[in-house]
Amino acid sequence: MENNLRINELKAQYKNELLDKVVPFWLKNSQDKEYGGYFSCLDRKGNVFDTDKFIWLQSREVWTFSMLYNNVEKNQEWLDCAIQGAEFLKKYGHDGNLNWYFSLSREGKPLIEPYNIFSYTFATMAFGQLSKATGNTEYADIAKQTFDIILSKIDNPKGKWNKAHKGTRALKNFALPMILCNLSLEIEHLLEESFLQQTMETCIHEVMEVFLRPELGGIIVENVNNDGTLSDTFDGRLINPGHAIEAMWFIMDLGQRLNRPRLIEKAIETTLKMIEYGWDKKYGGIFYFMDRKGFPTQQLEWDQKLWWVHIETLISLLKGFHLTKSQECMEWFDRIHQYTWNKFRDLEYAEWYGYLNRQGEVLLPLKGGKWKGCFHVPRGLYQCWKTLEKINTVTIE
Amino acid sequence: MENNLRINELKAQYKNELLDKVVPFWLKNSQDKEYGGYFSCLDRKGNVFDTDKFIWLQSREVWTFSMLYNNVEKNQEWLDCAIQGAEFLKKYGHDGNLNWYFSLSREGKPLIEPYNIFSYTFATMAFGQLSKATGNTEYADIAKQTFDIILSKIDNPKGKWNKAHKGTRALKNFALPMILCNLSLEIEHLLEESFLQQTMETCIHEVMEVFLRPELGGIIVENVNNDGTLSDTFDGRLINPGHAIEAMWFIMDLGQRLNRPRLIEKAIETTLKMIEYGWDKKYGGIFYFMDRKGFPTQQLEWDQKLWWVHIETLISLLKGFHLTKSQECMEWFDRIHQYTWNKFRDLEYAEWYGYLNRQGEVLLPLKGGKWKGCFHVPRGLYQCWKTLEKINTVTIE
Repeated sequence: MENNLRINELKAQYKNELLDKVVPFWLKNSQDKEYGGYFSCLDRKGNVFDTDKFIWLQSREVWTFSMLYNNVEKNQEWLDCAIQGAEFLKKYGHDGNLNWYFSLSREGKPLIEPYNIFSYTFATMAFGQLSKATGNTEYADIAKQTFDIILSKIDNPKGKWNKAHKGTRALKNFALPMILCNLSLEIEHLLEESFLQQTMETCIHEVMEVFLRPELGGIIVENVNNDGTLSDTFDGRLINPGHAIEAMWFIMDLGQRLNRPRLIEKAIETTLKMIEYGWDKKYGGIFYFMDRKGFPTQQLEWDQKLWWVHIETLISLLKGFHLTKSQECMEWFDRIHQYTWNKFRDLEYAEWYGYLNRQGEVLLPLKGGKWKGCFHVPRGLYQCWKTLEKINTVTIE
Repeated sequence: MENNLRINELKAQYKNELLDKVVPFWLKNSQDKEYGGYFSCLDRKGNVFDTDKFIWLQSREVWTFSMLYNNVEKNQEWLDCAIQGAEFLKKYGHDGNLNWYFSLSREGKPLIEPYNIFSYTFATMAFGQLSKATGNTEYADIAKQTFDIILSKIDNPKGKWNKAHKGTRALKNFALPMILCNLSLEIEHLLEESFLQQTMETCIHEVMEVFLRPELGGIIVENVNNDGTLSDTFDGRLINPGHAIEAMWFIMDLGQRLNRPRLIEKAIETTLKMIEYGWDKKYGGIFYFMDRKGFPTQQLEWDQKLWWVHIETLISLLKGFHLTKSQECMEWFDRIHQYTWNKFRDLEYAEWYGYLNRQGEVLLPLKGGKWKGCFHVPRGLYQCWKTLEKINTVTIE
């Protein structure tokens, strides 16, 4: 059938891009053979233009190669790549008490103090996934202990680095519960069942009942007052469509894990809502930041088109189509797929551009930097490939 | 003569824009008659879209209205406007020990802790200028004491908020010595002569001999290692042309104050170098951020065109022309004048846009926000008007 042909073609497209282009790009260009760890600041051709090492990206690359080893192929080169990064992280990434720095110099000296909770979440992901690949209990312990530290910091993730004056305006942020949705499944094998259940419930509640706002037509906001009410402030008006859409495939995964079709339906509905909300009708693509009242954002980069936003959207749409056969998901998938492959993919050199201006032109020609590493592109290609495989199987049946 | 006509026309243009459009815009729209202080988040028409109060902008508006009162006209409405803002700042802007918060809620409750040294520098400017207007010794004391606190923080301006791990990479930043060049003249009337001399010498040395780099062709970098060597890191490669150009008119003012023609020449030469370095040959305008090795910047907003960059450039070029009759200054002035008035000025409503995309289109339609207030536009119009007056007088003689 014609549809099956299309799905088969797409599956090959996502799989080949991952295995023939993106994975070799990082294997070849990012590994620091001298000091260990990875370079993430790579220019268009893969040349290193800066040697600082960011814990977010070190951890995410450990995770990616471990995940590929676990789920795609027992390729020793991938495992070695993950292990060398993890050993660098284990040795230099934290202060001795698993307080994870934000960045290190090339040789591993601490540059920026452990102010950022997501250094901890991505370290947990990395060591959790690698512990699966190796059975190494030390890696498992690092993941488990770091996860405990994260939970202990939930009420004030920035700790002493928090510049908000106590008592005037207490906001809570969407990012941490959203990441925990994904992380709880990532390290499921390390958590006690009742604790896992409780964590999943809390995260689902926060994402779907606190940050998702029916009174705003069902969009997700980035910050609310601690008591759950909306805040009419820069932070409280902020919308990050890509963030919300990424969270929705985490929720779909949880919906499958817990067998909750209505939760899945709600996540798909919210995905579509956020895409329509964030879609740039003039130039195409999804905006980075918006203000829910239409006021100017604080973020000067608000109108830019970012790789991860579009790749995460593809995942949510394909999962949505797979789980419910929603035609709306497939129509939007076609549209975002076209935009993403046309605009972000570099026809000449491997890996994708990360940052486009509003018009869809390349804003920074880097393949990796302070925030872009070996993560969203390979994870997205993998997720799409595997979801297309499931769709394909179902359609053929 | 034709030239005199042109200068006269320009003088009227800058003066009228200031007095007929910009000053009335802020007088009318920014004053919070209920709680005191100023709204700075104003949309295109001058409507308030957010009520948070940022100490940078509160202070800068006190300064602007005090300065206009001191230098243009003893207009009571201007003085009242400055005093009400200063009283709000005096009461709510600091922690009781002149540690200046970064921002406050509308009613004056602290929102963001005093982590930012420039809240202190602009508070000093504000109270220094207002003390001239009023003769009020309390205002003078606030300026003087805050200035002492700034000096005590010079080695680690961020204090406990500094996230850089001690000992790995010690950089120093251009912004503080650059601002002190201006501030030392601003509060000259409050400083002891020998101390003033010493401060001026230190600032001139830092700006012209530490951050200005002959080995890079005479451009100014934003950060250097503490020992004065260049740093090949994101921060160490950063160039902010507008920042450097703004500093050059502070240096020209110091050159006049100290009667140093060679310093003035060097400042003019550097102004022209930075304009040529930062000029966008494709779309016109001066870039916001650049990397001195041509690598991608961390700043996603690098290619945007900002109001203050262009207005400060006009000041430096006019002062350069006034002081040396440099034709190159006048040619560049013509070019930047055209760009600035065409792109930033709103034909329909008063005050200027602040943020354009690379192409020169309006990126955010605000007239004021978190970083744009009653400062660069009125100060720039005033400085250009007064410099044109001097040029005019000289030419006619």
